[in-house]
Amino acid sequence: MTQIYGKVALIGLGLIASSMFWASKRAGAAGVTSGYARSEATRETARRIGLCDQVCETAAEAVADADLVVLAVPVGAMSAVAQEIAPHLKPGCTVTDVGSVKRHVIDAVAPHLPEGVNFVAGHPLAGTEHSGPESGFDTLFDNRWTLLVPTESASKAATTQLRAYWEALGANVEEMDADHHDLVLAVTSHAPHLIAYTMVGVADDLRRVTDSEVIKYSAAGFRDFTRIAASDPTMWRDVFLTNKDATLEILGRFTEELFALQRAIRTGDGEHLHAYFTRTRAIRRGIIQAGQDTEAPDFGRGQGKT
Amino acid sequence: MTQIYGKVALIGLGLIASSMFWASKRAGAAGVTSGYARSEATRETARRIGLCDQVCETAAEAVADADLVVLAVPVGAMSAVAQEIAPHLKPGCTVTDVGSVKRHVIDAVAPHLPEGVNFVAGHPLAGTEHSGPESGFDTLFDNRWTLLVPTESASKAATTQLRAYWEALGANVEEMDADHHDLVLAVTSHAPHLIAYTMVGVADDLRRVTDSEVIKYSAAGFRDFTRIAASDPTMWRDVFLTNKDATLEILGRFTEELFALQRAIRTGDGEHLHAYFTRTRAIRRGIIQAGQDTEAPDFGRGQGKT
Repeated sequence: MTQIYGKVALIGLGLIASSMFWASKRAGAAGVTSGYARSEATRETARRIGLCDQVCETAAEAVADADLVVLAVPVGAMSAVAQEIAPHLKPGCTVTDVGSVKRHVIDAVAPHLPEGVNFVAGHPLAGTEHSGPESGFDTLFDNRWTLLVPTESASKAATTQLRAYWEALGANVEEMDADHHDLVLAVTSHAPHLIAYTMVGVADDLRRVTDSEVIKYSAAGFRDFTRIAASDPTMWRDVFLTNKDATLEILGRFTEELFALQRAIRTGDGEHLHAYFTRTRAIRRGIIQAGQDTEAPDFGRGQGKT
Repeated sequence: MTQIYGKVALIGLGLIASSMFWASKRAGAAGVTSGYARSEATRETARRIGLCDQVCETAAEAVADADLVVLAVPVGAMSAVAQEIAPHLKPGCTVTDVGSVKRHVIDAVAPHLPEGVNFVAGHPLAGTEHSGPESGFDTLFDNRWTLLVPTESASKAATTQLRAYWEALGANVEEMDADHHDLVLAVTSHAPHLIAYTMVGVADDLRRVTDSEVIKYSAAGFRDFTRIAASDPTMWRDVFLTNKDATLEILGRFTEELFALQRAIRTGDGEHLHAYFTRTRAIRRGIIQAGQDTEAPDFGRGQGKT
């Protein structure tokens, strides 16, 4: 049990913030953690399940005297929240966020923060398809990566302290610049999500195949897409609108390759297809070796089998 | 323990056939099960791990006196195997297959079979990203669907008996016509697989993002794609080449929808995106209600969390 911050304030109490609270509690990383959510229902739920040591009625109250303030609201709401809390921040405190895009968040938040506040943007690469205060759990960040993007306003000491906090929560931490972060995430997360949403939408539209058939016979492939496409709509709308350029670039590349594979199917070029599918197998092996997934056969079945 | 067939012959000893053997053994569904694989190494492995009661040196030997013959080879090999075994089939026996497309397999196999043989094409909707004789396990088909497509040559009794065999292996069974099967599977499996293969290929190609970054930071979305894109290259090449029309139709629809969403991103139409993402969430709920996946937050992590 190593306390990293005296007081942490969580603004927004969804899946990520609630998991941060439980993971922090497990580690004893904060002396006290306050929380605030805009919706009264969420604040009520938080009080009922013991999420945060204090659930406050205003963001201003929550951040008062906090050494670390975590903005855990949708990316589109970051600017307004930053403006709201700015006058109430403790001098010298650290502000971070957990948004899925970094350039936009930095541009939206940094101008509002008073001098002397250390702004270190952040992004824990962890989540499930569930959302809301009751979906959090204390192991969400274990062995996952959190990427930190220190801004000019941040002292080295502030970044080091935030790193220690995330490590106490179970995460591996790496620093990265904002634009590179947004490109990497467009590849590994944003474009795949849009693609999964699209495929699920197509299935739903297709009148010759009934919804119940799509649901019953979704044994392989499609079921994994539905899991991805069940993620929080507001969060994902904001991601696409605020990481527009990188996402559109990757989707352009994707469409190009998809057309090449479609042509191979149409012309019956089995060699091209086989070579492509063999190459993609290797990446999977790399992910398992990197410890970011298990080798257990799963295919979206959610339980280990042998 | 209800014996359904006196002798079952498995031609091809990969993931599906080996799982059929173990599931059949669990249920006592066959008096004896013979097996054959083209590769000597596979036959050796089968003998070593006790896969099949008899591992034969030729397909002819394996099917001799068998009441049920299961063609469990890649779709592209079905025709040659049917030709090879035809003269050795027991009069009145049932022949089935486990291929992922049905119209092509029926056209490839039916002409070779002698009169009096009952050909009931089949497709168990189950699998993992692993392949080979050692990847099978006896619960693979539990609560999964097996689709049967009886051909004109099949008696009602033969279809009923095959249904009972699959039910003994743990599966739910439904009958469907070949073309509808191929369309449904293009939506729920074939198009999603091609899309996943494509996205993984794009990531691998992108020189500005390193492979190790793709692998390390694949927390959400992309990791599920890599699992799908690790499936057997030969099997999938054959699927796309033999379910060409339905796959290309669905991919055309997919591209159309993807372009509409790209346009919404480009023009900043958040309402369109939010509405689309909200609608796709409902399908996921349907799949969980249908018992085809669990609600446990997973996101490709392969273990239950709370």
